[in-house]
Amino acid sequence: MSLNDIMFLVKDMEKVIVGVDIGGTSIKMGLFSMEGTLLEKWNIPTNTEEQGKWILKEIYESIKEHTAGYKLHGIGFGVPAPVKDNVVLNGVNLGWINKNVKEEFLALLKDDSVFIRVSNDANVATAGEFYAGVAKGYQNVIMITLGTGIGGGVMINSHIFDGMNGVAGEIGHIVVDFEHQFQCNCGKKGCLETVASATGIVRLAKYHLEHSKEPSVLRDMHYMSAKKVIDAAKENDFIAVEVMKEVANYLAYLMGVMTNTLNPDIFVIGGGVSNAGDYLIDLIKVSYYDYVRPFIKETNFAIASLGNDAGIYGAFYMVAPR
Amino acid sequence: MSLNDIMFLVKDMEKVIVGVDIGGTSIKMGLFSMEGTLLEKWNIPTNTEEQGKWILKEIYESIKEHTAGYKLHGIGFGVPAPVKDNVVLNGVNLGWINKNVKEEFLALLKDDSVFIRVSNDANVATAGEFYAGVAKGYQNVIMITLGTGIGGGVMINSHIFDGMNGVAGEIGHIVVDFEHQFQCNCGKKGCLETVASATGIVRLAKYHLEHSKEPSVLRDMHYMSAKKVIDAAKENDFIAVEVMKEVANYLAYLMGVMTNTLNPDIFVIGGGVSNAGDYLIDLIKVSYYDYVRPFIKETNFAIASLGNDAGIYGAFYMVAPR
Repeated sequence: MSLNDIMFLVKDMEKVIVGVDIGGTSIKMGLFSMEGTLLEKWNIPTNTEEQGKWILKEIYESIKEHTAGYKLHGIGFGVPAPVKDNVVLNGVNLGWINKNVKEEFLALLKDDSVFIRVSNDANVATAGEFYAGVAKGYQNVIMITLGTGIGGGVMINSHIFDGMNGVAGEIGHIVVDFEHQFQCNCGKKGCLETVASATGIVRLAKYHLEHSKEPSVLRDMHYMSAKKVIDAAKENDFIAVEVMKEVANYLAYLMGVMTNTLNPDIFVIGGGVSNAGDYLIDLIKVSYYDYVRPFIKETNFAIASLGNDAGIYGAFYMVAPR
Repeated sequence: MSLNDIMFLVKDMEKVIVGVDIGGTSIKMGLFSMEGTLLEKWNIPTNTEEQGKWILKEIYESIKEHTAGYKLHGIGFGVPAPVKDNVVLNGVNLGWINKNVKEEFLALLKDDSVFIRVSNDANVATAGEFYAGVAKGYQNVIMITLGTGIGGGVMINSHIFDGMNGVAGEIGHIVVDFEHQFQCNCGKKGCLETVASATGIVRLAKYHLEHSKEPSVLRDMHYMSAKKVIDAAKENDFIAVEVMKEVANYLAYLMGVMTNTLNPDIFVIGGGVSNAGDYLIDLIKVSYYDYVRPFIKETNFAIASLGNDAGIYGAFYMVAPR
């Protein structure tokens, strides 16, 4: 085969993009066509040994295998840590401190023409919902992920917004509860995470059960979960309803503050707690307008639609041509 | 004179930009060179008769007079109302409802080549501090103006950010006080404006005087003002210090929430209350880090430096070539 033949082959190879969503236990990857069609998705375990020094190498090997026969256009990375200018600042879960993921990955690829973009996982998931999920068509999006912890992502004018220290969207640690003041993992008291995450909902339920004599189906449970509290609330269990009203009020307050600061087009709620669906959104709306009137008459609220795939879609979006 | 001579003259005329800062009682204007040198500044009264229908006409006449002999490149407008895409949405002070300032002014000018940009006055002042004041060199800026009321401006990636309904930066009406719950003009209770504006400081001082038996120089005053409270606090008057600590704590809390949402590079404090200077900033820092740690180690704080000129500088910046 002549050099010309080889050049022709390379030119003709289909270009693809890989979206990488790095989690604490597994790394999810998606292979996309340039137009954004998800061709394949797969996982590898997260190897956190030796300060995560093998993670990028293992991602590289896996991508090489899955993109054989394609021309790689770009790779987007979502990382569970603050990220600024493609540098992971303080990735305690992975052992990555001030790690320049872009540079290190380009060195592995030995190909500077591949577009690399790295951002915080919650921001990347927000971009996913913006690109392919419920926030499609909106320019300014705030996503709140209510899982075991609480994450947040901010998109401004259709771009992921990282902030000065890559900390934009650290909304789980905004203090919203001045009453119970439960201790948070971060060292502070009364953070949103202590009262509106899945664990926060259980904590609040236990608190209400202790401080009330009302009967409740929650009293007889061996193992309490946020899902059980939400299900009981939907069945009008008095205590469970009180808990969910309180949770919704904290969320409404925070969304109100964010609205008066940024006036976003839409709030997207993701994570396990978002399975509460419209029930949760309706409860939030009850108090939200009290916090933002008379300036705001209407804001959009939606439950995230991509689930665990939001990260790979968002990672694709970061490096896709526009 | 031949047509060619005239064309040559027009071509040779110095280009200028006018910054217009519309207030409820007067309109401030600045004539700038293309490089941003302030050549002249002047005021005209705000004519709010007949739903403010004469305001633009009077601005037009005044600009025509002051720009004789120059070629007008652009005009930036700051308006005390929510603004979206150059349309003033709800300008109750001026009588302007859904007024397309850009279109109407271009019709007066009869010259579509003039760049027009209209934004909310607090956002424009923020752009002024960004362009020519203390926020120079920072990309993401939040300005809080503590005057009779409280205004706020947000710049993201060096651009003014208006939000979906032009309401980004309506931070005076974020609820921060769950204790006193003073009634706000907006209809809600506990807004930042009720406890941290100049009137809010006086309100808090009166409240503390009523609910305490401590001696205070504030007790003997016929007329209390925010300035007197601040001056007394600097002299270690017990009640005045308590008031200013409380004011600073509300501001610190709100800045903490904004930091965990947006992680801006710098907070700029303007308005009459900002004459408290570093005394206020130091008090804010005492509680600010309690609300944002452990994620944020350092945020910049500064007192606005342009005073009443911030608006015309920001209005210049909006239409200046970049």
